[in-house]
Amino acid sequence: MVAQQHIVRAYDEELKFLSARIGAMGGHAERMVERAVQALVSSDAALAQRIIHDDKMLDDAQREIDEKAIVIIARRQPLAHDLREIIGAIRISSDLERIGDLGKNIAKRVVAVSEARQPLRVFRGMEALSALALAQLKEVLDIFASRSVDRIASLRDRDDQIDQMYTSMFRELLTYMMEDPRNIAPCTHLLFCAKNIERIGDHATNIAETVYYTATGRQLPTERPKDDLSHDVIAPMAVSQ
Amino acid sequence: MVAQQHIVRAYDEELKFLSARIGAMGGHAERMVERAVQALVSSDAALAQRIIHDDKMLDDAQREIDEKAIVIIARRQPLAHDLREIIGAIRISSDLERIGDLGKNIAKRVVAVSEARQPLRVFRGMEALSALALAQLKEVLDIFASRSVDRIASLRDRDDQIDQMYTSMFRELLTYMMEDPRNIAPCTHLLFCAKNIERIGDHATNIAETVYYTATGRQLPTERPKDDLSHDVIAPMAVSQ
Repeated sequence: MVAQQHIVRAYDEELKFLSARIGAMGGHAERMVERAVQALVSSDAALAQRIIHDDKMLDDAQREIDEKAIVIIARRQPLAHDLREIIGAIRISSDLERIGDLGKNIAKRVVAVSEARQPLRVFRGMEALSALALAQLKEVLDIFASRSVDRIASLRDRDDQIDQMYTSMFRELLTYMMEDPRNIAPCTHLLFCAKNIERIGDHATNIAETVYYTATGRQLPTERPKDDLSHDVIAPMAVSQ
Repeated sequence: MVAQQHIVRAYDEELKFLSARIGAMGGHAERMVERAVQALVSSDAALAQRIIHDDKMLDDAQREIDEKAIVIIARRQPLAHDLREIIGAIRISSDLERIGDLGKNIAKRVVAVSEARQPLRVFRGMEALSALALAQLKEVLDIFASRSVDRIASLRDRDDQIDQMYTSMFRELLTYMMEDPRNIAPCTHLLFCAKNIERIGDHATNIAETVYYTATGRQLPTERPKDDLSHDVIAPMAVSQ
């Protein structure tokens, strides 16, 4: 009986370890993106270098979670709910690792973007876009920690705001590129940065879907299209005349 | 004894089902990308629409594999190797689903790209880039089907070729944008298409890493940086003078 309790407690600790590790990964990914955007708007190449270097922590954490998850499944042979929890941890850590990659990718473009002076407006827009995406990430990490699946619907809806803001940023950057060819290279890199931030919102939505599935055993109804609308953007009106 | 054999056979069938489903998903993803690039270079909006519509099949297949995998684990309580195989199926189907998304994303840009006539050279470049990425995808699906882990090293090395070709395509597109502002919007969409194709190569590498881990229980040594070099590209020499 005591031995049985001991096993149950050890198993519980293992599941808690996975959750705690995911929470830590989430915090790390969040800071990486935050600091990457900060490096971008302040042309801080040294900060960018540190972020690029920091990404390894997320890669290592993901591998650790993967391996730990497989060991737990093999040893404990968990049933439905716990099994979904463990598989969920594998999925979520892969989304968080990818968010770190997107942060790193922004950091890598810092030098190329700083080749030309960008209008302050562009940087403010980039900060606003990343604030939205980071709020989504923070919220989904909170939903994960508290298992508050009732907050998932509004989180998914807010992803539309990110898509819209990204699409208007896309138009704006095209306009700057048309105004002055010297803007073309740096603004192209900014376009990719904005796309990376928009993708962070998609990964937050993925994580929410995984949390929902883990908690309920059901897939979230009516898949919403995870996409921006920029692919339809032709030439901005102001310059197409 | 007969009952035991029956269970073993049923279990075997379940594992084979996962493998076969992954194979089918891989073939579907491959065709989606192939046809998306075809739609792009021939400005075929109707074909693009069909590809966008087709993507749902991959989403559904991924969900089916996920659910089936969890049922198999819960029912059969597999040990180390089989468990890795099943978790591997979950991972690989997620990479294939994402490849389908990338194909769909290319298809969505077909209309915007066809707004301006592009030099034939650009389309030939896009075809060459996607031929490389698709060869990688085909090879990794073959490695998965035959579990030939000895072919993984050369597959990983070839991803560098994709990165290099993408980076030179990036430069070339920037040059066209600088030559004529009317090229800016369509070439921006082409840049994103090229980036999508480059990402397909990364997913092929991910799949190879999963196959290696599934087969051996070890992670592939010395992680290679999965990234292109375009983030350093400033202005192309020809027009920066």
